[in-house]
Amino acid sequence: MNTADMSTLLHELESLSFESMSGSDFLLTWNHSPDELRAVLTVSQALRRLRSDGISPRIFDSGLAVSLFRDNSTRTRFSFASAANLLGLAVQDLDEKKSQIAHGETVRETAVMISFLSEVIGIRDDMYIGHGHEYMVEVGESLTDAHEAGLLERRPSIVNLQCDRDHPTQAMADLQHLANEFGGLEKLRGKKIAMTWAYSPSYGKPLSVPQGVISLMTRFGMDVRLAYPEGYNLVPELEAQAGEFAQNAGGRFSVSNSMDEAFADADIVYPKSWAPFNVMQKRTDFLAAGDAGGLERLEQQALQENARHMDWECNADRMGTTNDALYMHCLPADISGVSCERGEVSVDVFEKHRVATYREAGYKPFIIAAMILLSKTPNAAGVLRKLAESAPQRVSSA
Amino acid sequence: MNTADMSTLLHELESLSFESMSGSDFLLTWNHSPDELRAVLTVSQALRRLRSDGISPRIFDSGLAVSLFRDNSTRTRFSFASAANLLGLAVQDLDEKKSQIAHGETVRETAVMISFLSEVIGIRDDMYIGHGHEYMVEVGESLTDAHEAGLLERRPSIVNLQCDRDHPTQAMADLQHLANEFGGLEKLRGKKIAMTWAYSPSYGKPLSVPQGVISLMTRFGMDVRLAYPEGYNLVPELEAQAGEFAQNAGGRFSVSNSMDEAFADADIVYPKSWAPFNVMQKRTDFLAAGDAGGLERLEQQALQENARHMDWECNADRMGTTNDALYMHCLPADISGVSCERGEVSVDVFEKHRVATYREAGYKPFIIAAMILLSKTPNAAGVLRKLAESAPQRVSSA
Amino acid sequence: MNTADMSTLLHELESLSFESMSGSDFLLTWNHSPDELRAVLTVSQALRRLRSDGISPRIFDSGLAVSLFRDNSTRTRFSFASAANLLGLAVQDLDEKKSQIAHGETVRETAVMISFLSEVIGIRDDMYIGHGHEYMVEVGESLTDAHEAGLLERRPSIVNLQCDRDHPTQAMADLQHLANEFGGLEKLRGKKIAMTWAYSPSYGKPLSVPQGVISLMTRFGMDVRLAYPEGYNLVPELEAQAGEFAQNAGGRFSVSNSMDEAFADADIVYPKSWAPFNVMQKRTDFLAAGDAGGLERLEQQALQENARHMDWECNADRMGTTNDALYMHCLPADISGVSCERGEVSVDVFEKHRVATYREAGYKPFIIAAMILLSKTPNAAGVLRKLAESAPQRVSSA
Repeated sequence: MNTADMSTLLHELESLSFESMSGSDFLLTWNHSPDELRAVLTVSQALRRLRSDGISPRIFDSGLAVSLFRDNSTRTRFSFASAANLLGLAVQDLDEKKSQIAHGETVRETAVMISFLSEVIGIRDDMYIGHGHEYMVEVGESLTDAHEAGLLERRPSIVNLQCDRDHPTQAMADLQHLANEFGGLEKLRGKKIAMTWAYSPSYGKPLSVPQGVISLMTRFGMDVRLAYPEGYNLVPELEAQAGEFAQNAGGRFSVSNSMDEAFADADIVYPKSWAPFNVMQKRTDFLAAGDAGGLERLEQQALQENARHMDWECNADRMGTTNDALYMHCLPADISGVSCERGEVSVDVFEKHRVATYREAGYKPFIIAAMILLSKTPNAAGVLRKLAESAPQRVSSA
Repeated sequence: MNTADMSTLLHELESLSFESMSGSDFLLTWNHSPDELRAVLTVSQALRRLRSDGISPRIFDSGLAVSLFRDNSTRTRFSFASAANLLGLAVQDLDEKKSQIAHGETVRETAVMISFLSEVIGIRDDMYIGHGHEYMVEVGESLTDAHEAGLLERRPSIVNLQCDRDHPTQAMADLQHLANEFGGLEKLRGKKIAMTWAYSPSYGKPLSVPQGVISLMTRFGMDVRLAYPEGYNLVPELEAQAGEFAQNAGGRFSVSNSMDEAFADADIVYPKSWAPFNVMQKRTDFLAAGDAGGLERLEQQALQENARHMDWECNADRMGTTNDALYMHCLPADISGVSCERGEVSVDVFEKHRVATYREAGYKPFIIAAMILLSKTPNAAGVLRKLAESAPQRVSSA
Repeated sequence: MNTADMSTLLHELESLSFESMSGSDFLLTWNHSPDELRAVLTVSQALRRLRSDGISPRIFDSGLAVSLFRDNSTRTRFSFASAANLLGLAVQDLDEKKSQIAHGETVRETAVMISFLSEVIGIRDDMYIGHGHEYMVEVGESLTDAHEAGLLERRPSIVNLQCDRDHPTQAMADLQHLANEFGGLEKLRGKKIAMTWAYSPSYGKPLSVPQGVISLMTRFGMDVRLAYPEGYNLVPELEAQAGEFAQNAGGRFSVSNSMDEAFADADIVYPKSWAPFNVMQKRTDFLAAGDAGGLERLEQQALQENARHMDWECNADRMGTTNDALYMHCLPADISGVSCERGEVSVDVFEKHRVATYREAGYKPFIIAAMILLSKTPNAAGVLRKLAESAPQRVSSA
């Protein structure tokens, strides 16, 4: 629980430049300036502070928050619902056929039909590499067009709840977690974070978490070590971009094929399974073509390839080589001997860090709420100050 | 966006007689007097005006709005959810097995069980010709009985979100669109509207939209031209009734088998596919009997018959014969070359009118909210006046 | 409708000791003292009274109510949604694979992930004998741990919406119904209630209703007669426990294999089908093992065994032997000649008592709301008094 007081947070917020977030979408962390990212963290903390003080930060008396998920996700669904509810919005789910990659008129029409009285659209579209982000951009353009044509009095803003490139609500919650654990954003500079692949007996896990982490942590001057077995690379442009970010921010970014190398002396470890970029590409093609046989063969091949790397497990021996590292995971983790025979992390390591991973997850509802708030008003500081002063109770007391 | 100011709208409302709508259901437009229909349009405009002025028209602090859909529908679901949310109600979906035609005790019991703390029930039941409307009536009678027996302190009102006879929220949104495009309800008198069948490579589309349109527009003195290929007639009684409505209102109603005839010199065109009445009857029988083979054969026959009428397409040539007609559609349209090879409308015509069809759809949430409001209070004008005067903010500002 | 006025109810509430309900779960009625059960009934009546006076008992400005259902249930879903909405909470459903019996880390992790901004979790888990209650306890322990570890600022409370042992919201609604029909809780002392098995052409109906009824009514001094065909016993410990409850409360508890014996001179009859305990045990094992063949065979055997007891029907002849008994059912009932050829109750008996069974069901939303309220504040009387005095309108008037 963050202990910064409201007036400190509001002063910090007032010192930042983030006005252009109002009316726009949050799709990729690298579309946003460091000030804007800091604003998200600060508003998130302020909302949390208000709530822990019993104050309702409900700024909407009515309005819809649309969840458009092309993949099931209990955790993301609850985070989004919590954030929407905290601000006073009612969640309305859009059920789309999951196998469908919509384009053009279909996207345009659907985007408008769900937006007449909506304030925000949370989209999760991580299954189709090369399509998820484009889809969100297309929805966003449709909303802008409709707003400009006078069809939508207010343009709903989009929050990316996971795409094929980034997972900004996760990465930002991770950043908030790190800032709190290490005593502030500035303290992260130079800290060594091992973002590594780990073995899992499943396949097709999205790339957005590791991509989100390397893209964000490099910008805050961290020493980011990406490691994966040969062939398990992320989207090449995003690996390259992370290198540039590190250079610009005075940090480091390295890629290796050794979990041990990445862990050595690390301050933070983030071992997590994902499917190789080229597998995800083939999978997307098979899904688009509705080729069930192709998907089946691909899965078998991918699982066999995975099985060659069972030693990529985060265990006590490896943790022993770190600088008493903080273990991170976006959850749920594949825990050896618990959720599967062999997994991403040994049970002893996970148990030791379990509470910390839950704490990491707990930032997400507030991060999402902050993204919504910043997209709906240019004067977030003023809105929060008014709430803190009028202090409407969230729960009635006697 | 309508520009009528609140005081004009409230004066208009006060001049109308609609008290009997309070406590009753909205099932068919022809159950309601012209004054009552005008009240729906006026309240709808007033709610829209309040919202665009930043005022929350939330009249419920709590209460449920039940959605009982026997068919999937993203658009209707969102319209209903938006309307409910605007007034302060939480939507609760009732999941019923779609293939089930319930009667008697089952209907009665379910109706009460979902109504203890509910204010409104939105029902969509358009699949079973000869049953949808009856089902709504049966639910309504159950609610009345339960209310009179003291089981329900407040009787939820029913809003027909599409049945086998009428689609009143669509038809009323269409009427509002027409009134706004042509400068008022009075200006519609004598305007030629072509409600025509159009080709679609699907089958089983409900009859409720064309039936709703011919039943409503004739009552406002329009020159309604219904056209369809031989054999594609609507429910016969409803065609006959539209003729009577036209006669009573000093308008016209004609039926032909020629799209060209209907389009000639038309002020408005509404080309839309539907399944012939007799096909819908057979389909209902097969569905009730669970006869999958019969359904399959019927679909094949119907698609073959449809394919003989591919020339029933709204294209530039046909639009050229109209009086620069307004193109209408309830969406989603089957657009040739976009959503299918050959469809209801050519892409050039649709693109030209796309924004207008979206605008048409945008009235629906407010129409539904107006129907709800009018069913819950005999003094809608007073409620709206109080809202306009106390002006509760919908979104908090700094 | 209860006519007790608010000040009487609040005085009654202030005379009871129920402070320890605040912060805890409602899992089994026998975990709660008579005072605590009386508090539930009293708060339930007060909430109903407020609502019928047009006062909104909304104590939450935001917050989630999570519904975690491992079985479909329209009625329970609506009761829970109504209760949550009445208090100002938004319902968020957790979709879990129904066939899954989760344990350990999975339960712990899920429990925390859905709880960050949640106030209450309603759980229905009645399919797995020997597991449902344990599951709820495990979720509760996870929440307590997470709260103590600082992960959850507020610990959501759990309301048991039906488990393998008890169905407390049903049993308490039944008790409220009885108290109202007979003129108060004290008047129930010595009243004869026949809780009997009845024939149904289905199998696998849970034991929680009869178990809940015998466990609760014995504690209020009633003469509880449990009757079922040989082999259809409930969980043995719970039958034994009911005997002890009767002894302690000065009531009676008897078990027989004769519906007629139970009905003779009864003041209340509650004829309802259930599956024998040993069948439920086998079913649980087959479900856990995913043994579809075993399940199929078990169902056939159970239905054949059921068919030997078709004469266990509540009909006019049997009702004639009672003391003009009140007929009760948790709904939906299997009505002979209506929902099935032969069922639990004849159509004439059901029709005569239909309205009363609906009234019985109508208490449930308020019982659930009372359980939630009592779990969230130690000062329910103060909260209710303040609501009654400030009297916030639930529906805006002109």
